[in-house]
Amino acid sequence: MKAIVYGGPGKRSFNDVPVPRIQKTTDAIVRITRTTICGTDLHILKGDVPAVQPGRILGHEGVGIIEEVGEGVSNFKKGDRVLISCVTSCGKCEYCKKQVYAHCEDGGWILGHLIDGTQAEYVRIPHADNSLYHVPEGADEEALVMLSDILPTGHEIGVLYGAVKPGDTVAIVGAGPVGMGVLLTAQFYSPANLVVIDVDDARLEMARKFGATHTINSTRQDPVKELMAMTKDGVDVAVECVGIPATFDVCQKVLRPGGHLANVGVHGSSVDLELQNLWIRNVTITTGLVNTNTTPMLLKTVESGKLRPEQLITHRYAFSEFPQAYEVFSNAADSKAMKVIITNE
Amino acid sequence: MKAIVYGGPGKRSFNDVPVPRIQKTTDAIVRITRTTICGTDLHILKGDVPAVQPGRILGHEGVGIIEEVGEGVSNFKKGDRVLISCVTSCGKCEYCKKQVYAHCEDGGWILGHLIDGTQAEYVRIPHADNSLYHVPEGADEEALVMLSDILPTGHEIGVLYGAVKPGDTVAIVGAGPVGMGVLLTAQFYSPANLVVIDVDDARLEMARKFGATHTINSTRQDPVKELMAMTKDGVDVAVECVGIPATFDVCQKVLRPGGHLANVGVHGSSVDLELQNLWIRNVTITTGLVNTNTTPMLLKTVESGKLRPEQLITHRYAFSEFPQAYEVFSNAADSKAMKVIITNE
Repeated sequence: MKAIVYGGPGKRSFNDVPVPRIQKTTDAIVRITRTTICGTDLHILKGDVPAVQPGRILGHEGVGIIEEVGEGVSNFKKGDRVLISCVTSCGKCEYCKKQVYAHCEDGGWILGHLIDGTQAEYVRIPHADNSLYHVPEGADEEALVMLSDILPTGHEIGVLYGAVKPGDTVAIVGAGPVGMGVLLTAQFYSPANLVVIDVDDARLEMARKFGATHTINSTRQDPVKELMAMTKDGVDVAVECVGIPATFDVCQKVLRPGGHLANVGVHGSSVDLELQNLWIRNVTITTGLVNTNTTPMLLKTVESGKLRPEQLITHRYAFSEFPQAYEVFSNAADSKAMKVIITNE
Repeated sequence: MKAIVYGGPGKRSFNDVPVPRIQKTTDAIVRITRTTICGTDLHILKGDVPAVQPGRILGHEGVGIIEEVGEGVSNFKKGDRVLISCVTSCGKCEYCKKQVYAHCEDGGWILGHLIDGTQAEYVRIPHADNSLYHVPEGADEEALVMLSDILPTGHEIGVLYGAVKPGDTVAIVGAGPVGMGVLLTAQFYSPANLVVIDVDDARLEMARKFGATHTINSTRQDPVKELMAMTKDGVDVAVECVGIPATFDVCQKVLRPGGHLANVGVHGSSVDLELQNLWIRNVTITTGLVNTNTTPMLLKTVESGKLRPEQLITHRYAFSEFPQAYEVFSNAADSKAMKVIITNE
C-alpha cells in the first residue's frame, strides 16, 4: 500500500509499504477513506518530535471502514464505518479510569508518533473498542475527520480546561485549525465576547464568519493594549493556540483576576511566567493533550447540525495527490489552507 | 495608642499614633486583644511591597473586641468578640459575588497594606459585616488568630486550588506557617502521602508531628529525585509555599500527568515555566491570594477540635514586647519561631 513515511528531519516520502496486520486481539485494521494533515505532522517533519523514528507512517486523524478485527474486539465488525480518535486508550489503566485518556499507559497519542498512522491506505488501531467511534448514518465524513483531533482538542483543552462560561470574554490567540476549533466549540457555552488574534487577515476573516465578535491582527495592533482597552480588567479566558513564548506572553498579560489561561499550543521551549504579578491574581493555567472524552458529545453536535466543522476544510485531494496536499498545507500563508482533506473512497 | 509603624525599607518603629475612628457607616473599630506577625510583614519591611507607604500601621491578622460600629453595621455590636479576616470584602461587587473576595473592588488585602492594620491597640475594619466573624463561645482565641490568614490561605490556595483528593500524594515545598496550614488542612481530604520539603530540620520535625508522612531536607537530598523515586510517575499535587524560582522549579518537575501545582508563595520575580515538557502533561497551575470564603468552615473545625492551629504558636509576648516579637520572628532560623502571638487583653 502507499503511505506518507517520515524519513528523518526534513524528509517525507509517499512510499510503498506493507499493509498492517492484526498484532493483538484488541486491534482493528481500518481502510482509510478520508484523512488530513495536522500542524503536528509539520512539527514532526521539522524534527521537533524526536520520539518519531524514520520509517514511521504519519497521521493521527481519519475516517474509514473496518477491514478486520481481532478476536477481542466486540463493538466493531468488518464493514463498519468508523471515526478514528487521535488518542488510543485501553480503558483499563489508572489514567483511563480518570478519563485522562491522553496519558493511557498503553496508548495516548501513539498514532503517527510511536506506531504507524493514518496517512496510508490502511492503519492498525490498537484497543479498537475504546479508540474508534461508529460514524452516524448519513453523516458527512469530511466533517467527522475534524473530530479525530482538532475539535476535541479545541473543546477539551481550550474551552473546558479554560472554563468558558456564559457572559465571558474569551481571547483566542492563534487562528489555525485548533484555534478555530476553540472558536466553534466555545459558542456552546455562550460567551459574551470571542476575540480572535492572529497575524493573517484571511484567517481573521474566516474567524469572523465562524463567530468571532472581534478580531485583532497583531502585526498592526498590540493585542494586550487592545484587550485591556476592551475590558474592565482583562479577559476571563485566554486560549493559547500557537505554541511560542510571545503568544503565551499575550495570554498571561491579559488575564483578569480569577481568569483562566488554557494552553493548547505545542511548545518547543520554556516561557517566562510572570509570577511576580500573577501570584496574587487567582489565575488558573492549564496544559494538555486532548483526552477525546468529549468525542461522543461532539459527534451528536455534528449530527444535529449545531457544529459544522466541515467549514474548516479549504482544500480537497485524491489519495494519489497526497504530496501536493502536504505542499499546500505546509505553505498555508500563501495557499490560505486551513484544513485539507485527502479522500480514498 | 501604640502601633507598629512602617517607616520605609528597613525601618519599623513602635510608635504613638492616633486611635482610628469610624469613617464610613459600614466600618467597625476593634480593640485588638491578640495579633501576630506574618512573613508578608517581613517582605514589606524589606521594601518588597512598594504599595505600602511609610507611616502605615502593619498587620492583617488578629482577634479583638468591637469598640464601636457605624450605623450601617448590623451583624456586630459593641462588646462582641471578633476574628478579623486579612481580606476585606464589600459583598456587593462582581468579584464578591463570585466569591473571589481577594479581588473585592472596595477591599481585598488592604489591612496593613493600603490602610492601617492590626499591629496596634485599635484597628478600623471597613465593611465590617463581611470582614469580621463572631468568636465562638469558649474558643481558644490564640488558635483563632491562625484563621485570619495562614489557615484559610493554606486551605484555599494550597489544598482547594490544588484539588487534594483521597489517596493523593501531595508535596508541600516550604514548611513555614502557610506550608503548615496546607499540611494541617490537606488532612481534611485524606491524601495517602503528605511529603514536606524544607531546609530546616526543626521545621521538618514539626511537620512530622503535624501529620507529614515523609519529609525531605533539600540541603541534603534532591527533592525531585526523592519524589520521583517515591511515586510511579510524580505527585498528584505540589504546593509551592516559599516564593522563589528554585522551589517553583521543584514543583513543576515532580508533577504527574494530570497533576496540580498550587502556588501559594509570594514571588518577587518571574520563573522559567517548562512548557516544552508541560504542554502535553494535562497539568493545572494555580495562583492566588486567599479569599477567606472558607473561614466559617474553618471556624467550625477549630470549634470541634478537628483542627488545632494553636500548635503552630511557638512564642508569646505581651503587647509592650512587640519589638521583641519582631526580632524573634525575623530570625526564625535561630529562634525556631513558627508563629508568635502578641496579647493585649
